[in-house]
Amino acid sequence: MELKLPKKALVTGAAGFLGSHLCKRLLDDGYEVTALDNLFTGTKRNIEELVGNRRFSFVLHDVTQPFWGQFDEIYNLACPASPIHYQHNPVETTKSSVLGMMNMLELALKTKAKVLHTSTSEIYGDPLVHPQVESYWGNVNTIGIRSCYDEGKRCAETLAADYRREYGVDGRMVRIFNTYGPHMHPNDGRVISNFIMQALNNEDITLFGDGKQTRSFQYCDDLVEAMRRYMDLPRRKIDAFVKKHKLGAPVINTGNPGEYTIKQLAEETLRQIPESKSKLIYKPLPSDDPKRRKPDITLAKELLKWEPRVPLAEGLAKTIGYFRDFVQG
Amino acid sequence: MELKLPKKALVTGAAGFLGSHLCKRLLDDGYEVTALDNLFTGTKRNIEELVGNRRFSFVLHDVTQPFWGQFDEIYNLACPASPIHYQHNPVETTKSSVLGMMNMLELALKTKAKVLHTSTSEIYGDPLVHPQVESYWGNVNTIGIRSCYDEGKRCAETLAADYRREYGVDGRMVRIFNTYGPHMHPNDGRVISNFIMQALNNEDITLFGDGKQTRSFQYCDDLVEAMRRYMDLPRRKIDAFVKKHKLGAPVINTGNPGEYTIKQLAEETLRQIPESKSKLIYKPLPSDDPKRRKPDITLAKELLKWEPRVPLAEGLAKTIGYFRDFVQG
Repeated sequence: MELKLPKKALVTGAAGFLGSHLCKRLLDDGYEVTALDNLFTGTKRNIEELVGNRRFSFVLHDVTQPFWGQFDEIYNLACPASPIHYQHNPVETTKSSVLGMMNMLELALKTKAKVLHTSTSEIYGDPLVHPQVESYWGNVNTIGIRSCYDEGKRCAETLAADYRREYGVDGRMVRIFNTYGPHMHPNDGRVISNFIMQALNNEDITLFGDGKQTRSFQYCDDLVEAMRRYMDLPRRKIDAFVKKHKLGAPVINTGNPGEYTIKQLAEETLRQIPESKSKLIYKPLPSDDPKRRKPDITLAKELLKWEPRVPLAEGLAKTIGYFRDFVQG
Repeated sequence: MELKLPKKALVTGAAGFLGSHLCKRLLDDGYEVTALDNLFTGTKRNIEELVGNRRFSFVLHDVTQPFWGQFDEIYNLACPASPIHYQHNPVETTKSSVLGMMNMLELALKTKAKVLHTSTSEIYGDPLVHPQVESYWGNVNTIGIRSCYDEGKRCAETLAADYRREYGVDGRMVRIFNTYGPHMHPNDGRVISNFIMQALNNEDITLFGDGKQTRSFQYCDDLVEAMRRYMDLPRRKIDAFVKKHKLGAPVINTGNPGEYTIKQLAEETLRQIPESKSKLIYKPLPSDDPKRRKPDITLAKELLKWEPRVPLAEGLAKTIGYFRDFVQG
């Protein structure tokens, strides 16, 4: 019988919403996982079930500082991702994207690791093209209050593309659209966590405008599946794909293109929390309401043989289950 | 008689084309000048006439590393700026913009210095709005071969805006459009230096397409004048201006909105080099021909009571004089 050592993965932002799901999946897949987080928005609660695993190590570390070690795969997720968090300290937000990316790319360069970088639909800004395709360059303000996140993430993409062209670093990027699931922050200001918390707390559910604006929601497990498939591909397939589609670098959208109105989301939330005394109330649309974004996932489908599988009702049920436990302590 | 100490200025990229002109102007204005350059694209030749001045100090330093000292004013110009230079090492290009900006903003924060950052019309990318106004967000590819410059400069703007909002750092930005003059690189691939060098060397002058595409050309002294006026303004005027125009940060275009066709430029160059045996020849337009950009300078006019003064013929004469000396060694 052959003795096979587990593959080694480094995950930054590992105690965050997505990082914690990815770590669990990597452990399930047999990896040895080193989990970095500075615990600014991430929380140990998200990874407490993993800590007992002998193949899991948590390191309290800020990615704006270099980190060294030998890994087969680096998953770079570290960055505050909701406006109330990333605007808390905008300069540090930009640094976590840009310096974090530099540090991970340097590590990859020196150790020949693969890197999967999590970019974001925010790099499209307030898009003038619908749905968004990877070749769209975006419409982003350089000096506004969201710029720390958007421009930091754009610059990280540039670095990954240039480390690839200049030094041959095997960097792969996903542009993640709106994603939800257990381990989201209960008060990060996003619509799904807002609605669930309002319903659980019997507070009125606030809809802005007429509630008919649509959103796309990707369940976290679907995203993690895409990331794992992406990383498993051999480099020659990635290179051929980049060439075929004349992409400047391997970058694919991951998201759920299904659209729901905000009102549908509120109603489904209340249907799944039947004991709630919350009512729907309507308020005027704020001037900085996040713009509609919807992913074109043609490239992800082709490259990864992947598409989202978890229906909203099912994902919402799991998320509500998590928030119920959270509220009950 | 009052003893007045000279104001202290730090200039990064001081041995470059624009940096060297700015240093000379600051010395003429009575400043004590500390000049930083890593001499990657800058050259000591550009500052040799300044070295004898007791108020001038040159420090060989790369802005990707921190630099400390007490200054009243920081002029942040360091970054390779022509495609053949900035594409030589794309990762270092991005680092010089982003880390250079971080280091200068940290220095400003700790010493209460003002910072003038030189951004670029490249942050508008391939613009969909003509002429470009400061409120235009641009159209920039994050993962192309020009991205190292464009996105690095965009991210530097974001950092300056956030250091201002978050920490109160008095950062001011100019977005510089096409600028020319003595101390340009003779072979940096730009149209003015190309034409002059071709004419001086009796090589054919290459026009692409029909030569009727237009460009705007700002003479270096006009830009330096704008930078000095900008830095001289008290902060309250800057703040009021940002508020009045709902800018996210103090950012103004500087450039010459006058337009000339490439053919006009070639003809004027030959007129001023009458001994040249060069002829105009036409070649097909390359696919990556730089797109037309023209500054809207309404804001600079209002804030700085400034507009470009040097006509093309005059600026060209000075530039040709410089290149003649250069060719003759």
